[in-house]
Amino acid sequence: MDSKIGGTAVGRLPDDRARRSKAALVAATLAATHELLSESGLGGVSVDEVSRRSGVAKTTIYRYWPTRAALVLDACAQMTPGLPTSDTGSLAGDLTVLATVVAQRLRTGRWSSILPSIIDAAERDPQIAELHSRLHLVMTAAFRDAVERSRQRGESGADRDPAKIAAAIMGPLFYRRWFSREALDDAFVRFVVSSALNAAA
Amino acid sequence: MDSKIGGTAVGRLPDDRARRSKAALVAATLAATHELLSESGLGGVSVDEVSRRSGVAKTTIYRYWPTRAALVLDACAQMTPGLPTSDTGSLAGDLTVLATVVAQRLRTGRWSSILPSIIDAAERDPQIAELHSRLHLVMTAAFRDAVERSRQRGESGADRDPAKIAAAIMGPLFYRRWFSREALDDAFVRFVVSSALNAAA
Repeated sequence: MDSKIGGTAVGRLPDDRARRSKAALVAATLAATHELLSESGLGGVSVDEVSRRSGVAKTTIYRYWPTRAALVLDACAQMTPGLPTSDTGSLAGDLTVLATVVAQRLRTGRWSSILPSIIDAAERDPQIAELHSRLHLVMTAAFRDAVERSRQRGESGADRDPAKIAAAIMGPLFYRRWFSREALDDAFVRFVVSSALNAAA
Repeated sequence: MDSKIGGTAVGRLPDDRARRSKAALVAATLAATHELLSESGLGGVSVDEVSRRSGVAKTTIYRYWPTRAALVLDACAQMTPGLPTSDTGSLAGDLTVLATVVAQRLRTGRWSSILPSIIDAAERDPQIAELHSRLHLVMTAAFRDAVERSRQRGESGADRDPAKIAAAIMGPLFYRRWFSREALDDAFVRFVVSSALNAAA
């Protein structure tokens, strides 16, 4: 559909806003960005390639996302939805829900195959490091909420540090997914929750 | 020094074994590989570029390392020496030594800025995944040794699972270095050791 006649693209206008709604253009751009992230990591995402795959003109992409980093941030944020903040009535219960959801996402999610390329790029690129910090804050909010609910309930040990609890739960789960590649089963989820609760008490 | 006259390189022989010892050639090749890994991650390492930087002929490099993956494996293995297996007389003591050394390497080591690019590449490249598994086994051997010594001493809880202990210690340390970028101080080291011991008991 991108064949050119006399230097002019036909079948697709240079700026296709006329034919597709903003929502459709945004969705097509993000879908192409997700695809490229999955296939080849962060390094594989260029605005040129996103434009080619999505059929959305580069000028349109740059209208919605001023930089490649902004586009990647948005695509990653979509793939990293916040964790649930369900109130089970106890800190142990809430943390078990969180650990179970994280383990499930690590086993199945596109997100888990893309995060390493963000981490790697953040080592050398301050803009990506900033992006990653923002994603990380979104992901850990549910741990802060769970500890806050525990405080409000007056549970014993309610002065626990949510940053340590998040580290003691997500650390071993991430480790098994990316470093040791061992099973992320329910027994391991129970192990990390009890480990976090015992040590942070 | 690589200027060519009449198609023949001068100032550097195509195969420079004649001028440098095998040890010197290997050292120069590995040093250039380390540099490239640090600067641009795994994707930045090509045998061409290693040859250019080290001044070691490609044919020589391929004589010692049949593939790029073999060269990267060797360079990474050198940067990931095994952990100490010092016997402090107790599992808690041995694990504290291990966690302290890992935290220190994460804070200062070149290794810690390169590992993410290996993890990322392992998501898509089975050869790199295999390389990473081998490095991982080297790194976790000290945990298996510490638990085995604990068994031989007859310490209580000596039937602990070394894989879980490694996950509960290295997981939160890795998490802080690469994911949350929080402090890896002595207090956190004590926290992860007690967390691993309590939960694995």
